[in-house]
Amino acid sequence: MTRERIYLFDTTLRDGQQTPGVDFSVEDKIAISDMLDAFGIDYVEGGYPGANPTDTAFFSQKRTDKSAFVAFGMTKRAGISASNDPGLAVLLQAESDAVCFVAKSWDYHVRVALGCSNEENLESIRDSVAATRQAGKEAMVDCEHFFDGYKANPDYALACARTAHEAGARWVVLCDTNGGTQPDEIRKIVKAVIAAGIPGSSLGIHAHDDTGQAVANSLAAIEAGCRQIQGTLNGIGERCGNANLVTLIATLALKEFYSSRFETAIDTERLTGLTNLSHAFDELLNRSPNHQSPYVGASAFATKAGIHASALLKDPRTYEHVTPESVGNFRKVMVSDQGGKSNFINALKRRGIEVAKDDPKLDRLISIVKEREASGYAYEGADASFELLARRTLGTIPEFFSIEGFRVMVERRFDSHGRLKIVSEAVVKIAVDGETLMSVAEGDGPVNALDRALRKDFGKYQHEIDDLLLADFKVRILNGGTEAITRVLIESTDSSGARWWTVGVSENVIDASFQALMDSVIYKLMKNRELAGKIAAE
Amino acid sequence: MTRERIYLFDTTLRDGQQTPGVDFSVEDKIAISDMLDAFGIDYVEGGYPGANPTDTAFFSQKRTDKSAFVAFGMTKRAGISASNDPGLAVLLQAESDAVCFVAKSWDYHVRVALGCSNEENLESIRDSVAATRQAGKEAMVDCEHFFDGYKANPDYALACARTAHEAGARWVVLCDTNGGTQPDEIRKIVKAVIAAGIPGSSLGIHAHDDTGQAVANSLAAIEAGCRQIQGTLNGIGERCGNANLVTLIATLALKEFYSSRFETAIDTERLTGLTNLSHAFDELLNRSPNHQSPYVGASAFATKAGIHASALLKDPRTYEHVTPESVGNFRKVMVSDQGGKSNFINALKRRGIEVAKDDPKLDRLISIVKEREASGYAYEGADASFELLARRTLGTIPEFFSIEGFRVMVERRFDSHGRLKIVSEAVVKIAVDGETLMSVAEGDGPVNALDRALRKDFGKYQHEIDDLLLADFKVRILNGGTEAITRVLIESTDSSGARWWTVGVSENVIDASFQALMDSVIYKLMKNRELAGKIAAE
Repeated sequence: MTRERIYLFDTTLRDGQQTPGVDFSVEDKIAISDMLDAFGIDYVEGGYPGANPTDTAFFSQKRTDKSAFVAFGMTKRAGISASNDPGLAVLLQAESDAVCFVAKSWDYHVRVALGCSNEENLESIRDSVAATRQAGKEAMVDCEHFFDGYKANPDYALACARTAHEAGARWVVLCDTNGGTQPDEIRKIVKAVIAAGIPGSSLGIHAHDDTGQAVANSLAAIEAGCRQIQGTLNGIGERCGNANLVTLIATLALKEFYSSRFETAIDTERLTGLTNLSHAFDELLNRSPNHQSPYVGASAFATKAGIHASALLKDPRTYEHVTPESVGNFRKVMVSDQGGKSNFINALKRRGIEVAKDDPKLDRLISIVKEREASGYAYEGADASFELLARRTLGTIPEFFSIEGFRVMVERRFDSHGRLKIVSEAVVKIAVDGETLMSVAEGDGPVNALDRALRKDFGKYQHEIDDLLLADFKVRILNGGTEAITRVLIESTDSSGARWWTVGVSENVIDASFQALMDSVIYKLMKNRELAGKIAAE
Repeated sequence: MTRERIYLFDTTLRDGQQTPGVDFSVEDKIAISDMLDAFGIDYVEGGYPGANPTDTAFFSQKRTDKSAFVAFGMTKRAGISASNDPGLAVLLQAESDAVCFVAKSWDYHVRVALGCSNEENLESIRDSVAATRQAGKEAMVDCEHFFDGYKANPDYALACARTAHEAGARWVVLCDTNGGTQPDEIRKIVKAVIAAGIPGSSLGIHAHDDTGQAVANSLAAIEAGCRQIQGTLNGIGERCGNANLVTLIATLALKEFYSSRFETAIDTERLTGLTNLSHAFDELLNRSPNHQSPYVGASAFATKAGIHASALLKDPRTYEHVTPESVGNFRKVMVSDQGGKSNFINALKRRGIEVAKDDPKLDRLISIVKEREASGYAYEGADASFELLARRTLGTIPEFFSIEGFRVMVERRFDSHGRLKIVSEAVVKIAVDGETLMSVAEGDGPVNALDRALRKDFGKYQHEIDDLLLADFKVRILNGGTEAITRVLIESTDSSGARWWTVGVSENVIDASFQALMDSVIYKLMKNRELAGKIAAE
């Protein structure tokens, strides 16, 4: 059966750049366009050359290999010819394969925002598309506010789309710029546009997530006949974000409802790289991936102890709408739950630890983990502490050093000038090879002081932990009141780029932090030895 | 025009509890059910009494005032009668208005997970619903895996739904348990169920977000005839989460496509509390609200400098699909923001503080709040600290006492018997009426020691704070690393049953805790005086 081709258009580098808090450098843009190109996205929109130095620099050369490289910009200004518009000239000179113009298609905005006549706006669309084709490039037109514009003045919205199409635009993209249109309205209006003579094979959809339906709106447009989808990686974008291309790619490929009728450039094999693409992008943005993301989130195939866990183990397929492997993700039945032994064995195997099912040490490890989780530890979020505990219980970890004690002091007082002053000081005493090492440090708070004192003098190990960095620190109070149990999770990283999480639990926030800090240091020392072992073996 | 009523069913405390990383205490559950009840949700599902000590304790009394309070559980086991099933007995004895049963409706799961016959499963549904009605409670049935079950064996899935309906279940809820069903399939299957004789007025929809379409699926089911929606606050839930009730409430109320045909318990006025509800819930979960959430996110009405910003200023309505005020959110571009001011005035009015729109002290308060929120304070979750700040800025609060300083020490050492020992000690110095009062106390951790020392001697105020209790304590690290800014939220209560939240922010967790403890004591002293004033006036 022949399936119709859906074209994927990524606007992470243009509309995604409008996300509050996101600001790409040229290097970021190069890295992201490389990812998209390698993954197989049809169109990569890189930004708005001429609008800012970053985008101008980014378009000084072509950045993709297989993907069409797209420059974004405005249609020519009213009142001057295409050949005399300096903005248009910059766009056409940029090293891109295609130009995507944004054009008003709501008459209200033509009047208020552009301040020109409806006919002048059509002329700008027509001439800009023509100039682009003349420059030997593919042209496309984002019809801004198309759905709101259509509701206000359908004839004019259609006139804009028709003008772009007749001038030779490869794609006329219908944009739900304000993001408030509902799927049923999208479906009806797309059908009306096709009925008015613009074929679906020339139509794209650009949806925003302001009612949480950017994915549904994109799919509704596809069902109605559109054949190009614009979206972003992980759904970043202005306000509530754009359509999440990661989710859409998986749904188009894995849901029979779509896959029986449509195909994209992302085949079964490429699809297994989806989770990695999504996480690599978050890494680049320096933010934690959303655990609850469809298909690619760490929790997307996770089941907590409860009514589903034991049935899930009998036959995972009946509790999963797709297989985690199809998108390169993992099944995750929480370490601590009823699933029991085989989950533990798998969790250990992923960390390179082999253990026999009938090894009594395994039973001991399971009972230690259950006991500790009952007292507040959470190994599900602290892989390094889990691995340390497992290696301690199953095999051996050298005792690198021992802790003799610590003391932390926080004082709030007025200094001699009557100014409020808060001082945090920590003293740590450890022993390495029988020698006691005592360090003191001040810090911005008690945990910071403790961290500084702890890592100040590790004797012969000091050079090994110089590149250890604390990347994140989380505190969770497990049951109400100031007498509560406190759980501290610490994320560490080092110069190799590795990241690991450790956990500490105590009724004392300082002591819990200290446990997590200790585990992080020990994990780092262990990791260094493993790495040294591997290099020696090669 | 008469609009049809859509019933809102919240399962935050039950399915939301399945979210990896979420673990509600009884106190949390009480606080959340209070929020939902006060906001106007029709049904509040509280958990699974009998399944764990927390839920059993939570159902020891009715926790809602107006909302129907719902217990969740399994239908009776096959092979024994309803009256002999101890699990069912616990459910029926729980202090709830209604019971929501989960029942398999996919024959495959009946066989594999329950291990009983199809007919026995129908009998369990029938008898459990009948026993619930006999106990004088409303019954409803979650048909688990309904859509997948319908695709595999439509007759049996329909038989389950029909059995529940005919036995007298008020609602038969069609669940997309695995979350993979597409909106078009939802629409067709709901229509088929109605065509089979179960009226839409008895049908509910329970959707999951595994393809990013839980909201779209819920709305598709409503369009097809369902009249109850199950969802959670902010879309928490197992794997990728449940349908986001916050988004659905706003869309049903504000999108003419729905609001012209349907109504919920959330009218225009209640809707302005939506952003606050969403953020207060995140505060309680001790996590940052998602800035990109539809309607309620901090970025939902934010526009970055760019092609839209200046046009937006000309006429915001044409760049916003709904007004931010309608959901209690803010536009985020403008320097002096009228919406902001009236929101402040309303927030103050809710706390009994009247202030004129042109009072310069109001501008001062707004700028102080903005400045403090920029530095990490979160007044949304700390009503008492907000009220104190407002009263300090707008009017007067007596200076009950002053703080001269404190010192906190935590020591970990081995005692003379070689046992590990952790000691926390705090010294607090305050002045009341010129007299210095110095107290020392040990505690289970540094904050507990500080709390004990602080409240040990308040001189003439001591008897007033004897009934002050700390109910909850939350710590949030605002930016990674141990040098980060720490925000502490403390919930306090007293013998009158009142509850209030206070906040402290510092790079030092101890100091942040101290600020929040102080605010709590001052709020309590102020409250006592207000109450005394009211009693005197009566």
